[in-house]
Amino acid sequence: MKIICSKSNLVKGVSIVSKAVPSKTTMPILECILVDASMDVIKLTANDMELGIETRIDGDIVERGIIALNAKIFSEIVRKLPDSEVTIETTADNQTLITCEKAKFNIAAQSGEDFSYLPIIEKDDYITVSEFTLKEVIRQTIFSIADNDTNKMMTGELFEIEDNVLKVVSLDGHRISIRKIELKESYAPKKVIVPGKTLQEISKIIGGEAEADVDISFTKNHIVFEFDRTVVVSRLIEGEYFKIDQMLSSDYETKVRINKRELLNCIDRATLLIKEGDKKPIIIDIREGSMELKIKSQIGSMDEEIFIVKEGKDLLIGFNPKFLIDALRVIDDEEVDLYFMNAKAPCFIKDENQSYIYLILPVNFNAVA
Amino acid sequence: MKIICSKSNLVKGVSIVSKAVPSKTTMPILECILVDASMDVIKLTANDMELGIETRIDGDIVERGIIALNAKIFSEIVRKLPDSEVTIETTADNQTLITCEKAKFNIAAQSGEDFSYLPIIEKDDYITVSEFTLKEVIRQTIFSIADNDTNKMMTGELFEIEDNVLKVVSLDGHRISIRKIELKESYAPKKVIVPGKTLQEISKIIGGEAEADVDISFTKNHIVFEFDRTVVVSRLIEGEYFKIDQMLSSDYETKVRINKRELLNCIDRATLLIKEGDKKPIIIDIREGSMELKIKSQIGSMDEEIFIVKEGKDLLIGFNPKFLIDALRVIDDEEVDLYFMNAKAPCFIKDENQSYIYLILPVNFNAVA
Repeated sequence: MKIICSKSNLVKGVSIVSKAVPSKTTMPILECILVDASMDVIKLTANDMELGIETRIDGDIVERGIIALNAKIFSEIVRKLPDSEVTIETTADNQTLITCEKAKFNIAAQSGEDFSYLPIIEKDDYITVSEFTLKEVIRQTIFSIADNDTNKMMTGELFEIEDNVLKVVSLDGHRISIRKIELKESYAPKKVIVPGKTLQEISKIIGGEAEADVDISFTKNHIVFEFDRTVVVSRLIEGEYFKIDQMLSSDYETKVRINKRELLNCIDRATLLIKEGDKKPIIIDIREGSMELKIKSQIGSMDEEIFIVKEGKDLLIGFNPKFLIDALRVIDDEEVDLYFMNAKAPCFIKDENQSYIYLILPVNFNAVA
Repeated sequence: MKIICSKSNLVKGVSIVSKAVPSKTTMPILECILVDASMDVIKLTANDMELGIETRIDGDIVERGIIALNAKIFSEIVRKLPDSEVTIETTADNQTLITCEKAKFNIAAQSGEDFSYLPIIEKDDYITVSEFTLKEVIRQTIFSIADNDTNKMMTGELFEIEDNVLKVVSLDGHRISIRKIELKESYAPKKVIVPGKTLQEISKIIGGEAEADVDISFTKNHIVFEFDRTVVVSRLIEGEYFKIDQMLSSDYETKVRINKRELLNCIDRATLLIKEGDKKPIIIDIREGSMELKIKSQIGSMDEEIFIVKEGKDLLIGFNPKFLIDALRVIDDEEVDLYFMNAKAPCFIKDENQSYIYLILPVNFNAVA
């Protein structure tokens, strides 16, 4: 194999596919990026068997062939080359010569034949969203997946399509995040669970432009994202997702409208007094016209008052401050509405047309305090 | 004590003195910042017994007093307060109330009486340099102090004043860095060893402006830096510094003039192939008109050619690439001159009037390769 392409194209491609290189593996071939110039295009591929990414880069194929290069070494070399044309050339014994201006690197490689290709997916069933929308939806839900594997389903997000609505849901046992977006067209109903890791990596790769489209297609076991010159294929998580509809309710006894930034800053300040792992709740005392937030730990105590517009009953309720912070951080609205039933029922933060719903369980502060 | 000052003044002051708060200590009082409003000014002080920093901040003293607040908690609280007036008020039992707008923090404090004040220094003997110069001189020498304590003297830098020249020297057994700057006036000769940590912290605190002055004064055991509203007092390292003059020589058999950026980038690329702790040298082959750099490790090999202007003999010599990189990174000249004697003698990188001299010992590459 011998190919020539610009350093910048190479850097971009390598950085995209590197997201699918596992940080730890017992199979050295999985630590590689496959450079495939066996056909008329140059393709880079990485695949950790759960998540696979393939991207095309511009360049000249002088001699067809494929080679698998250690991702870490390859990407470090490529990044530090002068900003010029790069030649990648293999020799008979899988040695690979990377040349750029007067710099010559010679590294050991592995046969491309050993590499496990991405599964071939028939793309007949797909929906289209903009890069911007997909990136936003992931950002606004990904924080509430569970970060350990005790319940596999909680490490993923539900992608549910019904007519022209895509609903994305994540939950971790203490809170639920729901985002709904309107699609341009209507589609047949579909319900899949996408691994959180896939969504995190996708959101790093896509540019986030409102004009650029991502095609999302589905098979029985896989979800495929196609955008620009890149294809991302991920396994789905098997099983039936949690029935969340029965946990949602639109009844409330207390409704609070509050400036989001003020509330967020106040809770953020309060958490200074809590050491990591310390389960101190923030206590919220809702009264007519104002809300008092209080926290107390070994380090000291803090309280602060914020103006609110209140409907309904007064309420004293406690929360894990982190859960409130996580939700408030991703909401773009200047003012938010909080709905409460009582001190033991979940709090809902949602907008009028329910494009987002954040459900957060309270904590029993009498027991903790 | 009760004082009122702006959040921004407080943040600035706390961030300056925090540099002298030890990260680990068995004495809780050393983890504190002393807020001293016992006289007509508000002073913040931290002191780890080696290095002490004191800074004045603007504000109103409503009631005189002093109090010692845990540096970490105090600085975190101050940083997260709203951008407004902050009131710090102590109560009888050393509880301290920090109020800003509607936020109220109540934290435990320690009596200011237990705090060890900075030594009082008579300032009669001092030199003046600009913040910019001091910052540059530190940056250009600090990298070659030794990072372990086996030889205490190597963890500091020599500050030597003779007439109107300040010479700053650091060395670690493999290399020596020397910077000379001209002072505006002549001073009596002086020779002290300043702890590297002091210089690192100073360089973070000073602004780096060419118009702002730093007064540096000396006592038998201390060096004092005064600038803006801040005083930094540091213990000196005792002993007589290494005699470096006998290690310097202006003879050479080979002189190379080379583009600094090209050389630096090339060595930087070459180090990709070396894992941390791996002692592979970079081999430099100096010939007429060009210099070839070669490196070889388990990962692979790299070679690259750079144009040079050469005087004298051809030479094949090996170096620890890190030492070359460290020196080249801090030199601001576009072209540098390298002077060699033979493959076993040190290489000198210096400018014509010797405002900087970097001496680097070669490695015996035959043995290593």
